[in-house]
Amino acid sequence: MSSTNSPSITRSERAQLAMMLEVTAYPKPGNIDRCHDYPSTRLEHFLASTILVRPVFERAERGEGSIGDLIRDAVKATNVHGGGNTHFGAFLLLIPLIRGGDITGAQQVIQQTTVDDAVTFYEAFALTRVRMRDHQELDVNEPATIATLRKKKLTLLDVMRHSAPRDMVAREWTNGFALTCLGAALLAQHGCGRNAIIATFLDLLATEPDTFIIKKHGPDVAQEVVQHAREVKGGLQTLAAFDETCIARGINPGSLADILIASLYIALGEGWAWD
Amino acid sequence: MSSTNSPSITRSERAQLAMMLEVTAYPKPGNIDRCHDYPSTRLEHFLASTILVRPVFERAERGEGSIGDLIRDAVKATNVHGGGNTHFGAFLLLIPLIRGGDITGAQQVIQQTTVDDAVTFYEAFALTRVRMRDHQELDVNEPATIATLRKKKLTLLDVMRHSAPRDMVAREWTNGFALTCLGAALLAQHGCGRNAIIATFLDLLATEPDTFIIKKHGPDVAQEVVQHAREVKGGLQTLAAFDETCIARGINPGSLADILIASLYIALGEGWAWD
Repeated sequence: MSSTNSPSITRSERAQLAMMLEVTAYPKPGNIDRCHDYPSTRLEHFLASTILVRPVFERAERGEGSIGDLIRDAVKATNVHGGGNTHFGAFLLLIPLIRGGDITGAQQVIQQTTVDDAVTFYEAFALTRVRMRDHQELDVNEPATIATLRKKKLTLLDVMRHSAPRDMVAREWTNGFALTCLGAALLAQHGCGRNAIIATFLDLLATEPDTFIIKKHGPDVAQEVVQHAREVKGGLQTLAAFDETCIARGINPGSLADILIASLYIALGEGWAWD
Repeated sequence: MSSTNSPSITRSERAQLAMMLEVTAYPKPGNIDRCHDYPSTRLEHFLASTILVRPVFERAERGEGSIGDLIRDAVKATNVHGGGNTHFGAFLLLIPLIRGGDITGAQQVIQQTTVDDAVTFYEAFALTRVRMRDHQELDVNEPATIATLRKKKLTLLDVMRHSAPRDMVAREWTNGFALTCLGAALLAQHGCGRNAIIATFLDLLATEPDTFIIKKHGPDVAQEVVQHAREVKGGLQTLAAFDETCIARGINPGSLADILIASLYIALGEGWAWD
């Protein structure tokens, strides 16, 4: 029997299961998984976030609270441990998906975001300690940014459009959740269970450069990772060697991991069975 | 900052964190952990139960539902995946602890259990597929048992008293949660973080034979495990070798794992920091 088809599983629980399944799947090249931690962030931090975010997901599901407030509150609820930010990008995708139910619903939700959502999102971002290296982006530590958002009447969707060229999670808001959909279709194609999660992640890595890697290491390194994923798919390299190389160089495809969580949320809703 | 001291962490969340921390800690001799699965039960099944039980824990925390109903509903909420029973013993300890807040409160809660609680507990037990090999125990698959409970006016605490000689989880109900307390004290003594969890588990293994092992393999094997744990503590064996031996022989100290979860719940409430 699969939990995925159980009518008793709520959207919030489905999102939590997606977060749990993503982080435990292994080996995930460069990312935290069952076999690997980072010195200051460990598997348990990701799983604690998965547990502690639930009240916020439930508010999203009940239609309570604005999208900006919910993203900020998800960050607050999960910032209580020492592992730093774990799921900021995932919350950015999951909260509209939970509120809207599916991708069509989520697109309606993000169309309705407001300037207040944008302002609250910036508050949330400031809480995450995510490093900003791209000076083209609106600076979250700069009080003038908030004034700019208000003056130019930029909604949260506008902010995502502004960030989309350099951030693939933001891009999902602007392109109909394209990679999320692709990931869900790949999961179904690869069959049930955790091996499908890794096969899907490898496909996503081979599709587009991870923008988190671009921000941290530059576009050439991100392109090398795409190439490396293609070689693993083609049987020219092992997955284990790919994982080791990424870990040795501190390369973690964090944005594609966030998108994989959203794909798992969609796939679970469509009957994909994790166990 | 530690989640353990955060006033925003509810009892339910504390219990969920305890379940998550127990299952991810490694190496835990013979049990499922980050490094080991069983063929039909895997880490993800334990973590899914940790997520899906929350509504039942929240009812326990709010004072809604009888102890029997809550144990049955916890089993139902977590029986939706293919991994079989994962946390029956842990629920038996955690639900009175959540309802009562701490050990003193839990003891009051269990004193007040009724014949109806006993009947519902037997319903829950029948759902778990836990194998019964001890014919001295009331047979959960026997309708006459329910009639016996009613005729003899046996409360759930009476059932636990009946089972206590052969089941160390039931024994916790009758001896003031003795091993739960010991485990919490050991966690504090071993310091913070996941290494303390394994050190505490090893201490518990060296203290008393696990009754789940006794039921499955007999008392001699259970005593061998105690001896093996003492040798690891004394530096005569490695923890890895102990783990390998248990796994090779299908020996899993499941009852002490349940008690360790209860110890983690208590320790987290007393400020023990997991991260």
